[in-house]
Amino acid sequence: MQLGIVGLGKMGSNMRERIRRAGHTVVGYDRTPELSDVKSLAELVGQLDAPRHVWVMVPAGTATQTVIDELRDLLSPGDTVIDGGNSRWTDDEKHAAELGVRGIGFVDAGVSGGVWGLEHGYALMVGGDKERVERLRPVFDALKPEGPYGFVHAGRVGAGHFSKMVHNGIEYAMMQAYAEGWELLEKVDSVENVREVFRSWQEGTVIRSWLLDLAVNALDEDQHLEGLRGYAEDSGEGRWTVEAAIDNAVPLPAITASLFARFASRQEDSPQMKMIAALRNQFGGHAVEKTD
Amino acid sequence: MQLGIVGLGKMGSNMRERIRRAGHTVVGYDRTPELSDVKSLAELVGQLDAPRHVWVMVPAGTATQTVIDELRDLLSPGDTVIDGGNSRWTDDEKHAAELGVRGIGFVDAGVSGGVWGLEHGYALMVGGDKERVERLRPVFDALKPEGPYGFVHAGRVGAGHFSKMVHNGIEYAMMQAYAEGWELLEKVDSVENVREVFRSWQEGTVIRSWLLDLAVNALDEDQHLEGLRGYAEDSGEGRWTVEAAIDNAVPLPAITASLFARFASRQEDSPQMKMIAALRNQFGGHAVEKTD
Amino acid sequence: MQLGIVGLGKMGSNMRERIRRAGHTVVGYDRTPELSDVKSLAELVGQLDAPRHVWVMVPAGTATQTVIDELRDLLSPGDTVIDGGNSRWTDDEKHAAELGVRGIGFVDAGVSGGVWGLEHGYALMVGGDKERVERLRPVFDALKPEGPYGFVHAGRVGAGHFSKMVHNGIEYAMMQAYAEGWELLEKVDSVENVREVFRSWQEGTVIRSWLLDLAVNALDEDQHLEGLRGYAEDSGEGRWTVEAAIDNAVPLPAITASLFARFASRQEDSPQMKMIAALRNQFGGHAVEKTD
Amino acid sequence: MQLGIVGLGKMGSNMRERIRRAGHTVVGYDRTPELSDVKSLAELVGQLDAPRHVWVMVPAGTATQTVIDELRDLLSPGDTVIDGGNSRWTDDEKHAAELGVRGIGFVDAGVSGGVWGLEHGYALMVGGDKERVERLRPVFDALKPEGPYGFVHAGRVGAGHFSKMVHNGIEYAMMQAYAEGWELLEKVDSVENVREVFRSWQEGTVIRSWLLDLAVNALDEDQHLEGLRGYAEDSGEGRWTVEAAIDNAVPLPAITASLFARFASRQEDSPQMKMIAALRNQFGGHAVEKTD
Repeated sequence: MQLGIVGLGKMGSNMRERIRRAGHTVVGYDRTPELSDVKSLAELVGQLDAPRHVWVMVPAGTATQTVIDELRDLLSPGDTVIDGGNSRWTDDEKHAAELGVRGIGFVDAGVSGGVWGLEHGYALMVGGDKERVERLRPVFDALKPEGPYGFVHAGRVGAGHFSKMVHNGIEYAMMQAYAEGWELLEKVDSVENVREVFRSWQEGTVIRSWLLDLAVNALDEDQHLEGLRGYAEDSGEGRWTVEAAIDNAVPLPAITASLFARFASRQEDSPQMKMIAALRNQFGGHAVEKTD
Repeated sequence: MQLGIVGLGKMGSNMRERIRRAGHTVVGYDRTPELSDVKSLAELVGQLDAPRHVWVMVPAGTATQTVIDELRDLLSPGDTVIDGGNSRWTDDEKHAAELGVRGIGFVDAGVSGGVWGLEHGYALMVGGDKERVERLRPVFDALKPEGPYGFVHAGRVGAGHFSKMVHNGIEYAMMQAYAEGWELLEKVDSVENVREVFRSWQEGTVIRSWLLDLAVNALDEDQHLEGLRGYAEDSGEGRWTVEAAIDNAVPLPAITASLFARFASRQEDSPQMKMIAALRNQFGGHAVEKTD
Repeated sequence: MQLGIVGLGKMGSNMRERIRRAGHTVVGYDRTPELSDVKSLAELVGQLDAPRHVWVMVPAGTATQTVIDELRDLLSPGDTVIDGGNSRWTDDEKHAAELGVRGIGFVDAGVSGGVWGLEHGYALMVGGDKERVERLRPVFDALKPEGPYGFVHAGRVGAGHFSKMVHNGIEYAMMQAYAEGWELLEKVDSVENVREVFRSWQEGTVIRSWLLDLAVNALDEDQHLEGLRGYAEDSGEGRWTVEAAIDNAVPLPAITASLFARFASRQEDSPQMKMIAALRNQFGGHAVEKTD
Repeated sequence: MQLGIVGLGKMGSNMRERIRRAGHTVVGYDRTPELSDVKSLAELVGQLDAPRHVWVMVPAGTATQTVIDELRDLLSPGDTVIDGGNSRWTDDEKHAAELGVRGIGFVDAGVSGGVWGLEHGYALMVGGDKERVERLRPVFDALKPEGPYGFVHAGRVGAGHFSKMVHNGIEYAMMQAYAEGWELLEKVDSVENVREVFRSWQEGTVIRSWLLDLAVNALDEDQHLEGLRGYAEDSGEGRWTVEAAIDNAVPLPAITASLFARFASRQEDSPQMKMIAALRNQFGGHAVEKTD
């Protein structure tokens, strides 16, 4: 099977490699000439037989929109665009409609796997028409991990990114769960070996998981994480998960708490706690700490 | 009416003054000789006619326990001890039992008012037998604000401190409410005058309150609170409120969030967010910020 | 001064009345003929001298957009539209731009006061150009409560609705604060008179407020609220506050917890807790409760 | 090696079986004669050679205290009691002191594994003196899963139960994470096959775990969990985790949210939301839902 891939960053280039290893033909394009197989998007399209399949693997938002706009003009009716980036699910319906006007199909694919994907495979959550998704199965089979898991046709257009988004929301709260437990264990004197407690949990416990394995790896590198700052970025998916919850009136207390913890971690000082300090000072004469 | 007061810190000495202004006789004792009316607790007891009433106004915990132990040996059956400090409600039953063995009564009084109490009166939440509480009414009437509010016989022994504790829990969440709103307003560019927004809310809005008035006072002193650190202590009552909620299986999400925000405000760096950073680095190769 | 008002529901008609009482001329239009002073929006515009001022007081979203679209065609350069509804702040810039193309000005006004506004005045948070806001001062002065508070020119277009939105977010968390405290007090046996505890707090405490006064009113009508279901709607503003916080990476734990509590209150049963029950059953053999 | 086990419920009897399979001699005692190997605790002690090791596996609290009190009188200096129940870590120091007066040693063991333990082994988190813990290694080795994990000597007396408690706190938040994600996916129309989304996550994703496997099992039995009520008990450990966090000023937002979600799941109606409804009615004339 033939596939075009647009965007050859760490994710895109590893995916190209994994699909090629499975015996398929992949033409990759990237704005950076050294990474690219072809000189232009037009050349990429020209090298594929119809009906063409082009996998877009560029940052969500403007970059993805730009590529989709260009592909709309380059592709033909019957071709299919797959958005494998981290697009917001609300963009998917829009993109499907924009391409649909020209008879071009659209499939959204949420991709999990990160730096481990080339070796172990990428988990794929896919949304779109049954027929188009089936036609792309050889590519999905090449990307996914061995065995019965790691691929799902989740539903209609948008369902792939929505599922991946929720995956990331769950991920936030699971990470927060281990992080909270770790801090509490580190705080009490009687527990003398927190790292070994974490290690012991890797078998026979209710909370064993891949994230726990990673936590042990991290503690093996730096037992008390003394070399790190408690500073965590958040990607769009965590925010979108909470926004989707608000749209649907679903309470997400643990996931939202995890998102807010990241926001707070990036503040030099907390404005809201300045107000708390100010109010305590006003009504109780409680001492405040002055900035220098 | 005669009253003994033990503990003449800021609260105790102001309360002594307010009760005296109402025409009652107050004998105060404090370990610090310059503050004290008498040389010893024994002398305080000796100066009161039976049945005696002794108001204990010292820090909760060991200090209160010590005074109650001493009073148990100095007082006589029919006398009454009032604990007006910030004792945990679970101590009240214990203290009532310890004194009750000697025929000495016990009343617990949660006191609100802080530095404004001398002038405006202290809100009092009282627990104990109806008869003893009634006998103390002249003292309560002297302490409380003018008008129909500011005093309640909340229930049995412990109910006064429990009510005061919940008052403080509510206070935590109200302060947090204003603080969160203030931070959000300060963050957006279009709102050019957050202080005046707060000021405008002081009349005609659903959220007008005394705490809001204090917030405006604070912003008048330092419009963006630039001189303060976002650092907030918590007293026992906030913690106890959450513990009481857990004992009673009552969900308190807003009050608990407010308590946790204070905990976090006092951390130089967040251990749990170090773990989040470490995990992100493990699975995604996300950059971490190193400590120096 | 002359003013047109579009939308004569409970809010709009009371505001018309309050402005008229201040001696101004108000022409009101409503789709419902019995409520309306004129037969059409065109007639309303025709009865006002230029430069005209038209206050829109209809539901946020489609209804407001429709009125603004119609006014854009009916009004003239130099006229001003005031959106006093509960529009999302992000709509304000859009509306300002749409009207601005025709030389029509735009001012957004967040209005608080509810059913108490006619008598006590409405708190107003206003966004827009200084000059236009100043020209409308007689109307704002008529609407606002007596005294120095209740009106603010918060900033640029959007700042009025943004401030009102944050006001409502704070309101959510304040209500939640009292509600949590009330539930905890009601749960423990020693506190025998929760209503009187709340009443006592109305003077001399840190948590005295208008909302507390309302809580006491509610408890006077139904001491244990036995006649009510624990079911609470949420308006758009609470949701938007959390969304604005996410946009700005501001942690709002207490306000968000309050919003989620409302979501949960409207669920017949909790899907997420079904999953918790299912998981407990899987790993622990814990009994589950079956639906009938 | 010889071991006495007190308490032969589901956990105790399975553990007895697993230790016997490893070739050790186990004498079990239970109050229920049909379950017991001996007629009394005294007989159990009599059948063991000194230095004796007696594993207590009865409910935390009064039952455990009673057994420890009895063993204190039956055992001899140099013997060791292991508390493998779900005792609160604060009980461990007390028990160690009570037994220590008679020269009897104490080791606390947090045990995870539930109904799967007999087959797969039990994860063990142990606290106590290094020497005593080492002497018990053959028993721990028999109980733990195969391989390098599943056992840790976490630290001093109390560290075993503390670690197990934190394990359970983490478990609460992980379960909540999946449950929140599941509810959100079930709520949106575009995602047509939530169960298959969950199944797909079992390989190649960041959130793969044993709990996820269990979630898929549960969904295979009842795809939308329609047969279950959203009702979840909580054991002591979740509550104690939050209390330990409060004692140590550690913020645990996700774990606490998970605990509160369970509290709320058990309420027929929410008292706090009655208050919210009452307040909305007071200030806004918002309709309330009456109980029948």
